[in-house]
Amino acid sequence: MNATDLRIDPARLARRLEALAEIGAIEGGGVCRLALTDEDKAGRDRVLGWMKELGLAVTIDGIGNGVGVRAGREGGAPVMTGSHIDTVRTGGRYDGNLGVLAGLEVIQVLNDAGITTRRPLAVAFFTNEEGARFAPDMMGSLVYAGGLSREDALATRGIDGTTVAENLDRIGYAGPAPCGDNRVHAFVELHIEQGPVLDIEGVTIGAVDSVQGISWREYTVNGVSNHAGTTPMRLRHDAGYVAGAVVAHARELAREMGGDQVATVGSLRLSPDLVNVIAHTAVFTVDLRNTDEAMLQQAEGRMETKVAALAAAEEVEVSSRSLARFPPVAFDADMVRRVERIAGSLGHSVRRITSGAGHDAGIMAALCPTAMIFVPSVGGISHNVAEYTKPEDLEAGANVLLQTLLELAGA
Amino acid sequence: MNATDLRIDPARLARRLEALAEIGAIEGGGVCRLALTDEDKAGRDRVLGWMKELGLAVTIDGIGNGVGVRAGREGGAPVMTGSHIDTVRTGGRYDGNLGVLAGLEVIQVLNDAGITTRRPLAVAFFTNEEGARFAPDMMGSLVYAGGLSREDALATRGIDGTTVAENLDRIGYAGPAPCGDNRVHAFVELHIEQGPVLDIEGVTIGAVDSVQGISWREYTVNGVSNHAGTTPMRLRHDAGYVAGAVVAHARELAREMGGDQVATVGSLRLSPDLVNVIAHTAVFTVDLRNTDEAMLQQAEGRMETKVAALAAAEEVEVSSRSLARFPPVAFDADMVRRVERIAGSLGHSVRRITSGAGHDAGIMAALCPTAMIFVPSVGGISHNVAEYTKPEDLEAGANVLLQTLLELAGA
Repeated sequence: MNATDLRIDPARLARRLEALAEIGAIEGGGVCRLALTDEDKAGRDRVLGWMKELGLAVTIDGIGNGVGVRAGREGGAPVMTGSHIDTVRTGGRYDGNLGVLAGLEVIQVLNDAGITTRRPLAVAFFTNEEGARFAPDMMGSLVYAGGLSREDALATRGIDGTTVAENLDRIGYAGPAPCGDNRVHAFVELHIEQGPVLDIEGVTIGAVDSVQGISWREYTVNGVSNHAGTTPMRLRHDAGYVAGAVVAHARELAREMGGDQVATVGSLRLSPDLVNVIAHTAVFTVDLRNTDEAMLQQAEGRMETKVAALAAAEEVEVSSRSLARFPPVAFDADMVRRVERIAGSLGHSVRRITSGAGHDAGIMAALCPTAMIFVPSVGGISHNVAEYTKPEDLEAGANVLLQTLLELAGA
Repeated sequence: MNATDLRIDPARLARRLEALAEIGAIEGGGVCRLALTDEDKAGRDRVLGWMKELGLAVTIDGIGNGVGVRAGREGGAPVMTGSHIDTVRTGGRYDGNLGVLAGLEVIQVLNDAGITTRRPLAVAFFTNEEGARFAPDMMGSLVYAGGLSREDALATRGIDGTTVAENLDRIGYAGPAPCGDNRVHAFVELHIEQGPVLDIEGVTIGAVDSVQGISWREYTVNGVSNHAGTTPMRLRHDAGYVAGAVVAHARELAREMGGDQVATVGSLRLSPDLVNVIAHTAVFTVDLRNTDEAMLQQAEGRMETKVAALAAAEEVEVSSRSLARFPPVAFDADMVRRVERIAGSLGHSVRRITSGAGHDAGIMAALCPTAMIFVPSVGGISHNVAEYTKPEDLEAGANVLLQTLLELAGA
């Protein structure tokens, strides 16, 4: 049998996806495994068990990234695939998990076929890709690729006030492998699109050519708490009003800039949060993304200007801090063409696509030639328990991953 | 000594204000005694103790209102004063408490002077005036005046999911006195303005001629949770955006209508409340007030229209429920003139004023001729730990209360 005729076993991949989704399962078919929680630990344990069953040489590094290596006929830097297994609070079962478990499925196909590649192959799961508990997101791959020091990552304090270091220790995933200084020959990540483009257009495979730049900023507005009935409008210093006006402005900014620009206020909290009391404090986040760094900077600048103007008019104080900032990424052109060609040769429809979400692959692109393979998300729904990708698309994506890895590693 | 020469003892009034503010004291000099909490119970116990020390015949009714009666030379309906002793979560020490404790001070002055009035005198504290834990606000006086059934009030579920009935039982304030069917000759309430008008104009006494109508509505927006990076703006069903746009509209509505119209969004919560997830749910309140019922209805109508338009454009579902609705109140003209005259005769500057806040007096006005006496709030600040009224203004207001009650009850 020729290596190009090898195919993954969709039922086996589905069983692993199912088994991992049992951990942290929430109502509606979704998953909650926030990074470094007990649920995340249980998920890691399960994936680690599979890696060992498949004969991979497993290491855990100092930020909790897990890497399983399958030796090649030659040594040297491995061809790596992988993604993450942490989720947002209302996550689905495919986001991240698919990339890791499809990697394991590729390993199992090669094991069963008795094929040893020329270069080593590796499957990785990176710590805290989501950033839903600890900012920044893509923390594990950032540390792996040398874009963030292990010390800074460990000191990060999460939404519950505890640090990454405490939680890594608590779940036993502060491993002995060194961080940074990693060599990787090439990186390929299979992921669901998490957006509606492939689904709407009826295309099976997305050859991702770029990742949007991401700017996350948290604003704290300090005004004056006062009676909602007796305080004339002109005398108010209403933190809640400023927050609401920023929410409205975020939409207007995205509409005016057009193109790829998106803007979201996903978190917003008022204090004291009572019907008849003007809020003295508002804390909210602004998530801005664009494929173009200059446009992203323009969006950031417009938001800053608007927040400052609102604060001045309302006579409130505003402070802010960056939660995450990633410039847009353009993937290696040869890698993008390779994915396109392989998808076509397997008989799948394929188009180039930009990723609106950040991904570990976007970080790994700083380290080595990198590609991403997207499969459709039905209705574009993700970060939601209703996240769904059809079985035939999961299968198609995993087969493109298999053949891409085989070409890169040398069958 | 002539009764018109009687004066309250400001130091004694200040001591009682201080002693009551110790219960539920919070940082910054404020008070947190949300209705029917353990702190509210402790406050009630202290005030009840004082009532008994002063020789009042105390009753607690089925909604927890406390009334202390001082017998008159004749029987019949009492002249009543009073207010409330519950607070918002970040309350000051004067809101409500002043009206109750100044009433007790009046009783003590009469006791010390050995004066028995012709009509009975009563001092009342009404349950849950603030509405910060259970809606509607002014619940106790509403039940007292027959505007709300005791059964409906008891069944009210608060922000923590428990009912008024459970909490009244728990703190031992479900009393035996019947609710409704009360007769009161006249009602007078002393209160801080909670707004800036008297302070800005340097006027000591406000003769309140009206209370703004109040409309509280809670909106629940149900959209679709989705990824903040990958979901194009045009495909979003963002509950958070609709909430933010309503916040901005509330300000615009108040600005356009002008006059007395105020509009506040004091409470707003998003789910899942994460930086990179479009909110699927937003729950927020809108507080609208106007002195004119037709204008208030216009504001309500404009808000409804805007919310419906925003919901339709964003393709989200919106439901709402009324948390409280009180029409504007005009106080008895004779009573207003009486307060003006007495304040003037005591040498205080006085002006007619509208109350932007709801008060128990606004409810009692349905039962009997009613007056309210305002004293200045420094900076107009209330529902805030920084709430403050100068000692000389507290004294002036309590003396106007004393003389008004004496006139009404007959010295």
